[in-house]
Amino acid sequence: MGEDTSVLETTLETLIENKKYSTLRDIFMTMQPADIAKLLESIDGQKLPLLFRLLPKELAADTFVEMDSDEQELLIRGFSDAELKEVVDELYVDDAVDIVEEMPANVVKRILKQADPDKRKMINEVLNYPEDSAGSIMTTEYVSLRPDITAEDAIKRIRRTGVDKETIYTCYVTDDNSRLIGYMTLKDLLLADEDRLVSDIMGGDPISVTTTDDQEEVAGILSKYDLTAVPVVDKENRLVGIVTVDDALDVIESEATEDIEKMAAITPVDKPYLKMTTLEIWKARIPWLLFLMVSATFTGMIISSFESALARFAALTSFIPMLMDTGGNAGSQSSTTIIRAISLGEIDFSDFFRIVWKELRVAFLCAVTLAFVNFFKIRLVDVTILGNHSITIEVTLIVCLTLICAVVVSKLVGCMLPLTAKRIGFDPAVMASPLLTTIVDALTLLLYFKIATSILHF
Amino acid sequence: MGEDTSVLETTLETLIENKKYSTLRDIFMTMQPADIAKLLESIDGQKLPLLFRLLPKELAADTFVEMDSDEQELLIRGFSDAELKEVVDELYVDDAVDIVEEMPANVVKRILKQADPDKRKMINEVLNYPEDSAGSIMTTEYVSLRPDITAEDAIKRIRRTGVDKETIYTCYVTDDNSRLIGYMTLKDLLLADEDRLVSDIMGGDPISVTTTDDQEEVAGILSKYDLTAVPVVDKENRLVGIVTVDDALDVIESEATEDIEKMAAITPVDKPYLKMTTLEIWKARIPWLLFLMVSATFTGMIISSFESALARFAALTSFIPMLMDTGGNAGSQSSTTIIRAISLGEIDFSDFFRIVWKELRVAFLCAVTLAFVNFFKIRLVDVTILGNHSITIEVTLIVCLTLICAVVVSKLVGCMLPLTAKRIGFDPAVMASPLLTTIVDALTLLLYFKIATSILHF
Repeated sequence: MGEDTSVLETTLETLIENKKYSTLRDIFMTMQPADIAKLLESIDGQKLPLLFRLLPKELAADTFVEMDSDEQELLIRGFSDAELKEVVDELYVDDAVDIVEEMPANVVKRILKQADPDKRKMINEVLNYPEDSAGSIMTTEYVSLRPDITAEDAIKRIRRTGVDKETIYTCYVTDDNSRLIGYMTLKDLLLADEDRLVSDIMGGDPISVTTTDDQEEVAGILSKYDLTAVPVVDKENRLVGIVTVDDALDVIESEATEDIEKMAAITPVDKPYLKMTTLEIWKARIPWLLFLMVSATFTGMIISSFESALARFAALTSFIPMLMDTGGNAGSQSSTTIIRAISLGEIDFSDFFRIVWKELRVAFLCAVTLAFVNFFKIRLVDVTILGNHSITIEVTLIVCLTLICAVVVSKLVGCMLPLTAKRIGFDPAVMASPLLTTIVDALTLLLYFKIATSILHF
Repeated sequence: MGEDTSVLETTLETLIENKKYSTLRDIFMTMQPADIAKLLESIDGQKLPLLFRLLPKELAADTFVEMDSDEQELLIRGFSDAELKEVVDELYVDDAVDIVEEMPANVVKRILKQADPDKRKMINEVLNYPEDSAGSIMTTEYVSLRPDITAEDAIKRIRRTGVDKETIYTCYVTDDNSRLIGYMTLKDLLLADEDRLVSDIMGGDPISVTTTDDQEEVAGILSKYDLTAVPVVDKENRLVGIVTVDDALDVIESEATEDIEKMAAITPVDKPYLKMTTLEIWKARIPWLLFLMVSATFTGMIISSFESALARFAALTSFIPMLMDTGGNAGSQSSTTIIRAISLGEIDFSDFFRIVWKELRVAFLCAVTLAFVNFFKIRLVDVTILGNHSITIEVTLIVCLTLICAVVVSKLVGCMLPLTAKRIGFDPAVMASPLLTTIVDALTLLLYFKIATSILHF
């Protein structure tokens, strides 16, 4: 992909220089909107409006949707009112909302002014739902049918009105008060006898979400039930919109990214890496780095309090990184598994004891394996091969015993922390991952020095 | 969800005890297949076949698809040949393949024997594609149309044959040699004049994937171009199947899980957490734990070689955990960001220098902030409040200088490692994340002792 694009870029630049606009237009017309958007973004900003104007109306709108907000803003600022209206008219409401959310107030005003009254009303409605809610990602352009018409009439209605709908493949049936009473796929409708009533064909009791449901939940439902769209209802069960599966894909991807970022002690930012400024990246990363650095005061204090013992048994110091890292790794394996399983809805707090019992057994197996290997590694590599004879058999035993305790404790903390965080309403990914290292480090060091004290009697 | 299910479970168990089978059947018929499957899995295995037989034919097949392979196997073993045939007949090819892949050989034989010859051939074809390829996740049940028929005839054809197709919403146009020459949505077809030819309505040059493409790429294409299905062609551009968007959702979710697991030093396993045995979890976790533990020999060696210096300046030891952790956190922030951006296709190796330059600036900002805060934290908290007067101003400067160097080096290694891994064909997530800690630990310690040596002159 990367190389294709750069070849095209060069071709394009040559064509622009030579003012071969109709050739350019022909090239664009063979391409997909997402690819045109990517190409236009890599072109010098000054030529962007010129190139964009070459696109036919519908392709222009589809390409516009795929662009980053910086380029969208640049284009809008260059548009005449008539041009802006053409693009806005072609946009689906959910796409229009996505764009409006990223623009400064004066651009938003211009966009809303150019939208026709119906669309403006719909955009404003969707804008009013809380961020990341079903309402905020839904589109209000769906097919709704009455229960008392025939399949033939229903298909005629779809033929007449379908061109403006985001999907016509799932149709929703509503009663006189706009309440959602059923649904059917276009497949059901097409395969049914022409004179059967919609109410006979439809499935009752459709799966739906409410406007205030979290977008992650909505994506989960689309994925779980293999739906191409899910209806969104208000508190009175009135149908107000639908969320389609292409939006769910985006949500699932960005929620996974968020989880990954939180686990790596980064404040999630909804912006592609290359688009972020140095200062924005710094702002996303520095809070956790600072917090974790300062919280390491505890580990420092623990080591300080055993300073004299470490001075007498210097060999003990050299195992501190290994013990801390192994504890940390063991703990983050557990916490990561649990956090992901919570995200995917595989487990919840009611599985607490089952999970702890499972982790306890896994931890014990891991701990014994590690201690066993470590014992022979120390005696063979560190003592015999590397000739470090200050590592006595007592020190070896202390290290192996600490390893066992540290791995078991880390895995238990690693599984209990995210479950508890979830239970008390905190974000498992934030609470558990970055914090875990600090907790596990302190616990591992305490265990190490306690065990060392009782065996070496200092 | 969790509580709803357990209430239902109790109700169900009571109904089973009282042999209220028609009530049970009525309850099931109001439920979604995915929910019935989850419910049946939580029921005692002995009663599973009995309950499953209550389901009407089509609901039974849909529920069967949603179950875990253990329960599927249990059911198949209990099925008569006629019952097995009924379920197999209702399955789409891609679902049948998913099931067959998880079953032991003798069960596979029985399934294939009950499938009708056409379906058996299709299942066998799909089974032959490499794991995780487009061919292995595609279905062979799609709508294909000839270019020379009218819209009206096309719709008639879909009405006649559509009931067995996984999706009828995108139709593919093929020539006499089955070569893919165009596509159209059912929406295009329905909204077109009845006597227009398919060749006039269709879009040419459809986006397609080949049978050997990786499933992650396929999911990426479905997501990027907002498609509900993508055609799969062989090397001669003959249409052999389609991949639908519901499969892409599963792929995106499981690939994200895999990345997350690899970053946490876990060998990815494609099985829900609660279904894994203790031994399976141990097997997924122990390799990296062992490798990372043994590779910590280096950090141990570094510390050992500075043993005498550490004994003289004991305060230095207490800062080892903080320095290692901060380096590790700073590095994993960068590596995680880069790994995720690679996964999402936002960046590739050609962005190397742009990324390194960006990370360098971010690293410098982070490093200076951390060192500044750390200086005052040490003088104020550690020295003044905690009264640890062995921390001299020289030691403070050494720690802050090390912090700056360690953060910059860690962030650079953190961004270069995954990019390089990707370039030379290794998995960025595996290569970069677990290995990073080991590398960063060693580098941080080396920097610490070098800086300490040159300032304290030991």
